[in-house]
Amino acid sequence: MKRFIPDGEKFYFLTLTIMPFDFSDNLILNALREDIGSGDVTTRCSVPEDTRVHGHFIAKQNGVICGLPILEKVFGLLDSDVQVTLCAKEGQEVSPGMIVAQVSGRAWPVLSGERVALNFLQHLSGIATKTALLVEMVKGTQMKIADTRKTIPGMRALSKYAVRVGGGINHRMDLAGGVLIKDNHIRAAGGIIPAVVAARRTAPITLRIEVETETIQQVEDALQAGADIIMLDNMDMETMRKAVTIINGRAMTEASGNMEQKNLREVAATGVDFVSIGGLTNNIQPLDISLKFI
Amino acid sequence: MKRFIPDGEKFYFLTLTIMPFDFSDNLILNALREDIGSGDVTTRCSVPEDTRVHGHFIAKQNGVICGLPILEKVFGLLDSDVQVTLCAKEGQEVSPGMIVAQVSGRAWPVLSGERVALNFLQHLSGIATKTALLVEMVKGTQMKIADTRKTIPGMRALSKYAVRVGGGINHRMDLAGGVLIKDNHIRAAGGIIPAVVAARRTAPITLRIEVETETIQQVEDALQAGADIIMLDNMDMETMRKAVTIINGRAMTEASGNMEQKNLREVAATGVDFVSIGGLTNNIQPLDISLKFI
Amino acid sequence: MKRFIPDGEKFYFLTLTIMPFDFSDNLILNALREDIGSGDVTTRCSVPEDTRVHGHFIAKQNGVICGLPILEKVFGLLDSDVQVTLCAKEGQEVSPGMIVAQVSGRAWPVLSGERVALNFLQHLSGIATKTALLVEMVKGTQMKIADTRKTIPGMRALSKYAVRVGGGINHRMDLAGGVLIKDNHIRAAGGIIPAVVAARRTAPITLRIEVETETIQQVEDALQAGADIIMLDNMDMETMRKAVTIINGRAMTEASGNMEQKNLREVAATGVDFVSIGGLTNNIQPLDISLKFI
Amino acid sequence: MKRFIPDGEKFYFLTLTIMPFDFSDNLILNALREDIGSGDVTTRCSVPEDTRVHGHFIAKQNGVICGLPILEKVFGLLDSDVQVTLCAKEGQEVSPGMIVAQVSGRAWPVLSGERVALNFLQHLSGIATKTALLVEMVKGTQMKIADTRKTIPGMRALSKYAVRVGGGINHRMDLAGGVLIKDNHIRAAGGIIPAVVAARRTAPITLRIEVETETIQQVEDALQAGADIIMLDNMDMETMRKAVTIINGRAMTEASGNMEQKNLREVAATGVDFVSIGGLTNNIQPLDISLKFI
Amino acid sequence: MKRFIPDGEKFYFLTLTIMPFDFSDNLILNALREDIGSGDVTTRCSVPEDTRVHGHFIAKQNGVICGLPILEKVFGLLDSDVQVTLCAKEGQEVSPGMIVAQVSGRAWPVLSGERVALNFLQHLSGIATKTALLVEMVKGTQMKIADTRKTIPGMRALSKYAVRVGGGINHRMDLAGGVLIKDNHIRAAGGIIPAVVAARRTAPITLRIEVETETIQQVEDALQAGADIIMLDNMDMETMRKAVTIINGRAMTEASGNMEQKNLREVAATGVDFVSIGGLTNNIQPLDISLKFI
Amino acid sequence: MKRFIPDGEKFYFLTLTIMPFDFSDNLILNALREDIGSGDVTTRCSVPEDTRVHGHFIAKQNGVICGLPILEKVFGLLDSDVQVTLCAKEGQEVSPGMIVAQVSGRAWPVLSGERVALNFLQHLSGIATKTALLVEMVKGTQMKIADTRKTIPGMRALSKYAVRVGGGINHRMDLAGGVLIKDNHIRAAGGIIPAVVAARRTAPITLRIEVETETIQQVEDALQAGADIIMLDNMDMETMRKAVTIINGRAMTEASGNMEQKNLREVAATGVDFVSIGGLTNNIQPLDISLKFI
Repeated sequence: MKRFIPDGEKFYFLTLTIMPFDFSDNLILNALREDIGSGDVTTRCSVPEDTRVHGHFIAKQNGVICGLPILEKVFGLLDSDVQVTLCAKEGQEVSPGMIVAQVSGRAWPVLSGERVALNFLQHLSGIATKTALLVEMVKGTQMKIADTRKTIPGMRALSKYAVRVGGGINHRMDLAGGVLIKDNHIRAAGGIIPAVVAARRTAPITLRIEVETETIQQVEDALQAGADIIMLDNMDMETMRKAVTIINGRAMTEASGNMEQKNLREVAATGVDFVSIGGLTNNIQPLDISLKFI
Repeated sequence: MKRFIPDGEKFYFLTLTIMPFDFSDNLILNALREDIGSGDVTTRCSVPEDTRVHGHFIAKQNGVICGLPILEKVFGLLDSDVQVTLCAKEGQEVSPGMIVAQVSGRAWPVLSGERVALNFLQHLSGIATKTALLVEMVKGTQMKIADTRKTIPGMRALSKYAVRVGGGINHRMDLAGGVLIKDNHIRAAGGIIPAVVAARRTAPITLRIEVETETIQQVEDALQAGADIIMLDNMDMETMRKAVTIINGRAMTEASGNMEQKNLREVAATGVDFVSIGGLTNNIQPLDISLKFI
Repeated sequence: MKRFIPDGEKFYFLTLTIMPFDFSDNLILNALREDIGSGDVTTRCSVPEDTRVHGHFIAKQNGVICGLPILEKVFGLLDSDVQVTLCAKEGQEVSPGMIVAQVSGRAWPVLSGERVALNFLQHLSGIATKTALLVEMVKGTQMKIADTRKTIPGMRALSKYAVRVGGGINHRMDLAGGVLIKDNHIRAAGGIIPAVVAARRTAPITLRIEVETETIQQVEDALQAGADIIMLDNMDMETMRKAVTIINGRAMTEASGNMEQKNLREVAATGVDFVSIGGLTNNIQPLDISLKFI
Repeated sequence: MKRFIPDGEKFYFLTLTIMPFDFSDNLILNALREDIGSGDVTTRCSVPEDTRVHGHFIAKQNGVICGLPILEKVFGLLDSDVQVTLCAKEGQEVSPGMIVAQVSGRAWPVLSGERVALNFLQHLSGIATKTALLVEMVKGTQMKIADTRKTIPGMRALSKYAVRVGGGINHRMDLAGGVLIKDNHIRAAGGIIPAVVAARRTAPITLRIEVETETIQQVEDALQAGADIIMLDNMDMETMRKAVTIINGRAMTEASGNMEQKNLREVAATGVDFVSIGGLTNNIQPLDISLKFI
Repeated sequence: MKRFIPDGEKFYFLTLTIMPFDFSDNLILNALREDIGSGDVTTRCSVPEDTRVHGHFIAKQNGVICGLPILEKVFGLLDSDVQVTLCAKEGQEVSPGMIVAQVSGRAWPVLSGERVALNFLQHLSGIATKTALLVEMVKGTQMKIADTRKTIPGMRALSKYAVRVGGGINHRMDLAGGVLIKDNHIRAAGGIIPAVVAARRTAPITLRIEVETETIQQVEDALQAGADIIMLDNMDMETMRKAVTIINGRAMTEASGNMEQKNLREVAATGVDFVSIGGLTNNIQPLDISLKFI
Repeated sequence: MKRFIPDGEKFYFLTLTIMPFDFSDNLILNALREDIGSGDVTTRCSVPEDTRVHGHFIAKQNGVICGLPILEKVFGLLDSDVQVTLCAKEGQEVSPGMIVAQVSGRAWPVLSGERVALNFLQHLSGIATKTALLVEMVKGTQMKIADTRKTIPGMRALSKYAVRVGGGINHRMDLAGGVLIKDNHIRAAGGIIPAVVAARRTAPITLRIEVETETIQQVEDALQAGADIIMLDNMDMETMRKAVTIINGRAMTEASGNMEQKNLREVAATGVDFVSIGGLTNNIQPLDISLKFI
């Protein structure tokens, strides 16, 4: 059994959910409200109140499972007596037919929560699976796979969590979590150097400063300005290699620009520290998982 | 210029957004909070406060544009003085290079809202584009393309709106918006007939009653029970054809079960009224659109 | 002991309250905030903190009790250690002197929650009692008693729940829960037929379509358009009888228009399926119930 | 034309609504959400988007109108371009056929807001009408008509506002707005005198202290303890008269206990300062008002 | 061991926090969200998930401890398994080195909640300590020490609670909790007498009416108008003494106006009932308390 | 006229308030709700509704003004017609008698908002004034003055904004805005080096990593581990000087530990980059400012 994240690794985003009725709880509660509306008419009308059910969440494709703790939340929010038993570890590789979790309890909350539970589980597992695939592609190289802010509205924290479960790393969580000076900022500030100087003077001292570059000249400006991270945007392989050589460890390097469609091992060979890919979080095929009652 | 929805057609979900600070406004506000966090440090640190910008939202792929009214909301929530001009009509077919909207105003709100605007626009246009493709496939037949409740949490209303913009129709919005008696309900109720009877007696009188069937026997039970809609789930083409023949207009018919992977014209040829497809809303490639400043 | 709802019957609205801190919980929490404000000064100033009390909720009128599960919520939200024991069944007929529930625990939460508990219990029991009275009036006929959207703001779901506890049925919960084409819609759409056609094409497929009619001609148009339900609004008994005859089971029929002031058995004799009455939820005499400490 | 409140009189509760998106705005917004749900399907499906309407709010009964400013809020929240013109003054006596307000604008927001607008207007006018009737009964006496905390959950502030519009006065808004020592508090504190002493020492100095009494002995204790207000609860007329004589202006006096069923002029003749009546706010017949389009 | 509040005394504000997820819970939850943001990166990245800690909250200055119940809330909201043991009583005098509370549990929630816990505890203890100091100054006199509405936004209820823990009394909680007619109101109303008359007629009957006076003439007007409390604002000692003599117990008296800089025993000697001091709640040195892990 | 912040400088926190009804708007709205409660009884009862006022906000002490934009928000939220005119620039040095702002409009919103406006303005100006004083003390040295997370709950963003207005710099906004490895983390991770390694691997790549050190040995470990910032905690001047010499620009340096009580010029002489001081935000004397009506 392979697991994409080492057992000792910590998942700080999801574990925040220990704060009751906050964060991902609110997200899940909103998802339940969105799906249940003023009531699950069908279940309440046709299933006797004291009916009990037992069901299996079964994987129907190969992939990396992600979002299992959410199952406990979804049903727990509907009925604290529903029992969820996890049969797989978060981040584990699954195959068709594998039972990843079981649920037991009164039929009403289980049937009313089924769709929301699956919607989360399938989408997050889709992200983890895609990330794991790309991480596998560049295995043995120094290059890491990072996410972006191209996430589906509302799913930012969970999407970035799923990237980590799939073995990727996180770029900034939001606009307050890092300074990333792009071409528009550079133009407005009158060049890379004044932009970085302004940011150094004004931004919280705990944030790194990254600069987006498209040419070797810009890379040299960014180095001179003392950027902590230099983004190599839409460069061809040769330019990227040259940029990495010039930087020579004085800043971290990030490859960017439709990277999903590139040969990632070739990108890794340029020596960049990491590559960021929007499609990790905004172009996802859900992992096929179903809930079967027995 | 082709537009997938007739000009006179109404979009009741999106237009609900005329209620200030409610519904999709709250969704958009939450998306802005999620992305901006405690502040867009980069923009505020490196761009002078009085800088003004003018930008073009440009399509970079063929597809159906959806979500244009959201652009006005996103920037309007950040700064009521930002001007958004729509250059395409909601639901219009676009091609690479087409300007779909323009934005002008102070650089701060425009730069801070850019990512959220694009995240909505690309995802919704992806849904509309996929729907339009499937609608096109069954053109000339009686069969409609419908959505499901397999949506990404938080995006239910907008996703279903995008399906309509792409030419599809909506199944129930949530568990309160229709009675859909599935196998679990049937088993718990002791058969299709008692389940439908119970629902008729208890559910709000304004909701239709749909029954999921997998066999001809079940179809006959559903008919006898007086179901308004009969779902033909995972049937082969021959069984489905037979079922439609038996039903003979006494109930609406819905084809269901991994329909995205089927030959939809063949499904249409069975005579079913509509087909429902989860992938319309949970397996989406974003339409490539970018914001260029000039 | 008579109970207005059969024991096996389900209450899907109230039972939604199993979702913690949602729905009716929020309603109850808001009611507590509204009544307690920045603190129950009197209780905290004059009753020692460790005082314990035991009280009886006693009916002082004949009626149908409704809202008992709310008692547990009200006191549970204030102090999870307060014990509430229900002595009557929801929907049971009560008479003066009957103990319907008991409460035990620390004096502070019990005294602070008393008024809110009674405000809910008396109002909902008033609705259930009135509904039961009207249901009794038409006993033995085919005609059902239905509610409307004429509810006191904020009380929609609980009011409609109380109608069901009293033996009535529910019309649509809100404007999204059914299509009801009234005279204004008909005029704007250019007639009943185009209005129904438009609704059939655009509304979610799971909703029935109802048309309001005032004349036999309109009834015939509605039939031709394929309406699922036909409202017979403000018709005299003879016209109503004629309309029902013409419809002849091809659509459900609803009698409407100041029905509370009509002879309901005479209305039932026209053969209509149900009558809707605004006064079920907006013209309520609270059932007299008090909390006595012992 | 008679108006129950003098023109110069101030309505501090309703006018609080000048705070945008607060207080009664939130109440109204919640009422709109409750009634509209995920969308007014009927209106959006059958009325063309550019249709405009003009309507009259017409009284159909004699009564006191209350809640007119809410009309502006309801429609303003749905569409800032809808025009509401008030034709009556808040608190004015109306008669059948009188136009109390007009509304003009796009058909969509007007039709979607109609029910909520009427639900508020009818209920609040019902309260004001009932209050005015009781105020009229005791006209010429010293006795004022006051409300209680027996309000329908969520409607506290507006209900108490309506009482004032009808010519009544307000008892405490909530448990923080006054000290009212009842029998349970007295028993727990060991008597009226220790209870009042404790409250004097601990409660905010800006609150009056009221004591509930049922006997002449308790009245004397309350006087000795220095109560600011003495409630005469469930006393017969003779005891009440005697109590008022003993108090002799040293405290305000409140008559209480099923007062709605009493001869109020007889109560007034005892000399009490005011009478409090729960039925002012929890046993209300809505004033019949309708919206007619022309 | 001295405690500034008698053991039997009640704290109605803080004890409101028994209402789950309301009031100070919301305040504390917001403080946690404000401090934790999208996650405590440091703790989650560098401390193993199963690490457990045990810590002591230790006073490092002399003062009065206040806010201990908040410690239980802060950690309880993060993890219901964290154990908090209070070693001091709320309101107790502490000295350097004293352990006031202990905390045990998983390291993650304890480390993530530490700063918020200390921010509350130090600030509230600062208020209680300052209040106790001033109460001590006037010990043996009739004069009480009262707070004002000069509080730091968001901290009103807890600040006023801390004043009581320090032995002070509370002026009105908010603008709804008392009538205080100041010079601007007097001028607008055309004098003290018309202002008081208007307030008597319109304000809820449960509120006292206080008038601000600066001259003996105003004091006499306030008496004649029947004010319940008379504020003596910015008077010199002689005028204040004269005012108290004239009032002679017919109203309560409040000394006001930069009172923190006055000789409070001299103020007390004028005979005023209480003095109100803004600096009790808006000019606070936090009591030095730290959390040490062992 | 001196201004503590250059005119071109940007205030990214406050300017976030351009997002309508978000962020500091919510803070201000909550402060208004907290202070107004269910209504400003006094103003509504004694001031005629059409009274208009004009007032001056006047400084009564020397200091740095901060929070002026909040004045516009406070009154704007109560009544969009109230005019606020700023007479001083944010961050300007003021002296007794200076008019810093004027307000004109209806008396009701102005009187109801006065206290909240002053509570914000006085507290924030107190922070800016104290910061400016400390910045002045170290003028001409390389050392910057930074804030901490020791803020009053709810005031984090505005407090840190005020620090910047006073000429200070910001440390991390919250626990997500930077990695700061303290002694507890070090102990749990088994030393500085493994702790930094873990953080490098797991934290978002956009955050700097800071390590708290108390000895020269720890400084050397932090350097070796590649920390971006090294905190010199509670070191005597000699050790601090030695640490700075060893670090020699390879990391930023922060002096910490009861720094408010130190000779800051002596601290600066050690060569540290910045000093962090909790008292900047949690031990504040409000700047005396009053509102005078004319």
